[in-house]
Amino acid sequence: MNTGNRGEGTQFEFSFHLPTLIEFGWGKAARLGERLLQLGVSRIFLVSDKGVESAGLLTGLAAALRSSGMEYDIYTDIEPDPGLETINRGAEVFRSRPYDCIVAVGGGSSIDTAKGIRVVAARGGSIREYAGVNRIPGGPGSIPLIAVPTTSGTGSEVTIFGVYSDWQNNVKVTVTSEYMAPTIALVDPELTARLPAKLTAASGIDALAHGIETFFSLRSSPASDALAMEAIAVVNANLRRAVEDGSDMEARIGMSHGSLLAGMAFNNGFLGLAHAIGSALSGHCHVPHGIAIGLLLPSIIEFNTPACPAKAAKIAELIGVLDDHIGQSAGAAVAKLVHGIGLPTRLREVGVDQEKLPAIAKDAFKSGMMQFNPRMPTEEEVLELLQRLF
Amino acid sequence: MNTGNRGEGTQFEFSFHLPTLIEFGWGKAARLGERLLQLGVSRIFLVSDKGVESAGLLTGLAAALRSSGMEYDIYTDIEPDPGLETINRGAEVFRSRPYDCIVAVGGGSSIDTAKGIRVVAARGGSIREYAGVNRIPGGPGSIPLIAVPTTSGTGSEVTIFGVYSDWQNNVKVTVTSEYMAPTIALVDPELTARLPAKLTAASGIDALAHGIETFFSLRSSPASDALAMEAIAVVNANLRRAVEDGSDMEARIGMSHGSLLAGMAFNNGFLGLAHAIGSALSGHCHVPHGIAIGLLLPSIIEFNTPACPAKAAKIAELIGVLDDHIGQSAGAAVAKLVHGIGLPTRLREVGVDQEKLPAIAKDAFKSGMMQFNPRMPTEEEVLELLQRLF
Repeated sequence: MNTGNRGEGTQFEFSFHLPTLIEFGWGKAARLGERLLQLGVSRIFLVSDKGVESAGLLTGLAAALRSSGMEYDIYTDIEPDPGLETINRGAEVFRSRPYDCIVAVGGGSSIDTAKGIRVVAARGGSIREYAGVNRIPGGPGSIPLIAVPTTSGTGSEVTIFGVYSDWQNNVKVTVTSEYMAPTIALVDPELTARLPAKLTAASGIDALAHGIETFFSLRSSPASDALAMEAIAVVNANLRRAVEDGSDMEARIGMSHGSLLAGMAFNNGFLGLAHAIGSALSGHCHVPHGIAIGLLLPSIIEFNTPACPAKAAKIAELIGVLDDHIGQSAGAAVAKLVHGIGLPTRLREVGVDQEKLPAIAKDAFKSGMMQFNPRMPTEEEVLELLQRLF
Repeated sequence: MNTGNRGEGTQFEFSFHLPTLIEFGWGKAARLGERLLQLGVSRIFLVSDKGVESAGLLTGLAAALRSSGMEYDIYTDIEPDPGLETINRGAEVFRSRPYDCIVAVGGGSSIDTAKGIRVVAARGGSIREYAGVNRIPGGPGSIPLIAVPTTSGTGSEVTIFGVYSDWQNNVKVTVTSEYMAPTIALVDPELTARLPAKLTAASGIDALAHGIETFFSLRSSPASDALAMEAIAVVNANLRRAVEDGSDMEARIGMSHGSLLAGMAFNNGFLGLAHAIGSALSGHCHVPHGIAIGLLLPSIIEFNTPACPAKAAKIAELIGVLDDHIGQSAGAAVAKLVHGIGLPTRLREVGVDQEKLPAIAKDAFKSGMMQFNPRMPTEEEVLELLQRLF
């Protein structure tokens, strides 16, 4: 029996939770209004960002809301890698009017902002008070949250995580609770059809990293493994195509689907070293999340391979490159993909100051994801890895 | 891209919902009291059956409840394939005292009974009013339901289904709603350690059928496929061992795990022809569910193979028998397994009256699961299949 990494014999145990109702399909966003009618809500706080708004993605959704008789306000006062203050400010706006539902339309920043606003609106206080694992007391509150992703990468539409920037301390703060999970994820690949190649690449490599890191995770189980393997295969089959030709509908569907599968997997298996270092890198140097992850991922796969040779071999097989030196081939295949889709492969290319590397290496250990990595590095090993990537 | 059976290109769509929190592990049942404390409940309506009670399985659980300060009453006034009246009667008892939580300990009958009691207790009326798909209005109510399975087969601990017997009309009635899903599934393989070989075989072949039927289903998706394939492999690897040596802990863990994975899969992919005919067979002739399913499954696999040759080949590969005539080998491998674990393979062996076969064939089409089978049979084809199995 494949018992994953979680223990053999009677030690084999796991938990699994995926409370969000998922609805996936091209054009599904047009049915948002109907879906809200079924939920019995009518006053919508629509959280999005200015990029999504100016790309015209809200036009169709707003029409769908109006035709179902919904009142709504669009709230776009948010920024990439949203700060703690942004969440608290949004919750204040939410509470200033009798909204009964939140709809988030956008990438991870919009969806995470909406998750945070929902908790603060229902429970009071500041989002910082809920940082950590299972720190939201009581039930889920009564505000339904519908997540409508416009990128294919974060998986935030189905996860129990919200990640926020503490700009004063240059760190990311994570809120982990089942009460963070959206009520419904409405995943419509059509909304990603005009995503620029650069964003497609950066968010797509993040999805691949979710599949790979959760597959390696000490918290993985056969259920999360099954979803992760499918995610890795589907993202790998579609990412290059989606970057090279954004109008390739099948590739867009594949990326939305692969990213969703990866979210379903890592919501249960959690992540590892790439996300731990990536958080610190983004916190210190404002490197966009997907760029940081793509840059780190090949080296992390190589670092983890001695601890999980069978899983590394499976990743190599799924990515479709097999040779004698298995560990290197999984890492090398991903490196080739990162390069092939035009993402940076050196820290110096993305504005990182070499003098900050020791602080980044140190802060990587503050991430909650570090503990799930199958091979625990020393601070020196992380620094060495960063120096090699400089 | 593997798009399952649900449509190609932009027609590819699916939904996925698995609201139950799953906790899996040997000995986990001893922590039931702690778990209930976290939920903030204290007055427990414990639904079980006399077989489970006399096997001594409630002793440890009752101790766990007492040591956490819970008040509880044990309710065992239920029967196999519970009737509609049983549910309504149980709900009346629940409402006669200020219980705030239901714990179900047992096989599918106990868990399905508890699911029904919870709905009627919260929403009133009779369970018959909720028969069908999404017929439970409003929210989930506020009564938490913890399902603790003592067999490895039904998957009921994670599904949105409840199946009840309408003894007046000799049919099964199914309630399908997200509000039927247990709040928590506490899956402890230790509770199955003393399950007799016959019950291990009958419930285990039901779990295999869940994996196979949902893999074939028209409602399958890559996510349900990934779970179904893992379920088929894990059940196949452990069923013979668990039947032959009930004290084989690894096999018991495998069966609990495989059965759970199959439940996670078919909760989303739904089932097919074996369960449609099986329901009618149990309704008319009181054949126990697992026995009926084991008897039908090999022929159904052969019937479905022309419609899904690639999936049939994958099943054959997972069951570990490969030859040139792929369809036959999946069906034949399962037939060999059914025979090998001592289950009946002829309808005449299980007390079926040959004259009832036409009525059984007719009633199979009343099952909600028929529509998901990848190849639609005529009534004549179903009758012919039953005659061959007589």
